[in-house]
Amino acid sequence: MSAYDTNNIFAKILRGEIPSTRVYEDADTVAFMDVMPQAPGHVLVIPKAGSRNILDADPAVLAKTIPVVQKIAVAVKEAFEADGVYVAQFNEPAAGQTVFHLHFHVIPRHESSPLKPHSGKMEDPAVLAANAEKIRQAL
Amino acid sequence: MSAYDTNNIFAKILRGEIPSTRVYEDADTVAFMDVMPQAPGHVLVIPKAGSRNILDADPAVLAKTIPVVQKIAVAVKEAFEADGVYVAQFNEPAAGQTVFHLHFHVIPRHESSPLKPHSGKMEDPAVLAANAEKIRQAL
Repeated sequence: MSAYDTNNIFAKILRGEIPSTRVYEDADTVAFMDVMPQAPGHVLVIPKAGSRNILDADPAVLAKTIPVVQKIAVAVKEAFEADGVYVAQFNEPAAGQTVFHLHFHVIPRHESSPLKPHSGKMEDPAVLAANAEKIRQAL
Repeated sequence: MSAYDTNNIFAKILRGEIPSTRVYEDADTVAFMDVMPQAPGHVLVIPKAGSRNILDADPAVLAKTIPVVQKIAVAVKEAFEADGVYVAQFNEPAAGQTVFHLHFHVIPRHESSPLKPHSGKMEDPAVLAANAEKIRQAL
């Protein structure tokens, strides 16, 4: 496994070098809108501490991150009146990881809507902003 | 969301009323082989404390569960010489949840092998036992 690269896109988001639509932040964790959402309300939860993925993460960091995953899961379910919530965390490209800073996907699910593939076009920033505001209201 | 049902299959596994092929256990957490694996080495990590899923879980329980998810992820990657590890946690049927006791799926991934659907036939118990032993050796 490669070492952690401090120039990955989420590290840049954490340093404010790349913009993001944040819905939550505390001393250890940030949650922001996925710019290529698999469903409306798709949020990424990341620790501020750098690790490539779960395999090399500090267990104490994981223990602080997962309650935020929970908070966001509860909030997106409410905000989007979802029937369920899918939480996923990919380690290495063979598992679907494309950005090499540990992150949890939190995705509202509706019975009637299949998940979109995680690729293709960037969502309209105005849509992301509106969805982020719904989530903030539910937090 | 429905209340936690103490007669769900994982609660029965925790009480020893239904057999399971365990690879890890501590005071708060159990990890055992999924009987319908999506790939060889598919493990489920569950807290002993009862909650339906992440939405109603005690955050302190989550904080103790996720380091075990990490331990198992590292172990299955080694045991199956995997290229990556997929971690997934489903909340409510719309997100794919079929057993209503909080659980994390930990699934080794190889570049060349697509994930099998989570349904269909039970794996041969001898195969599960052999795979469990590989994981125990890597823990």
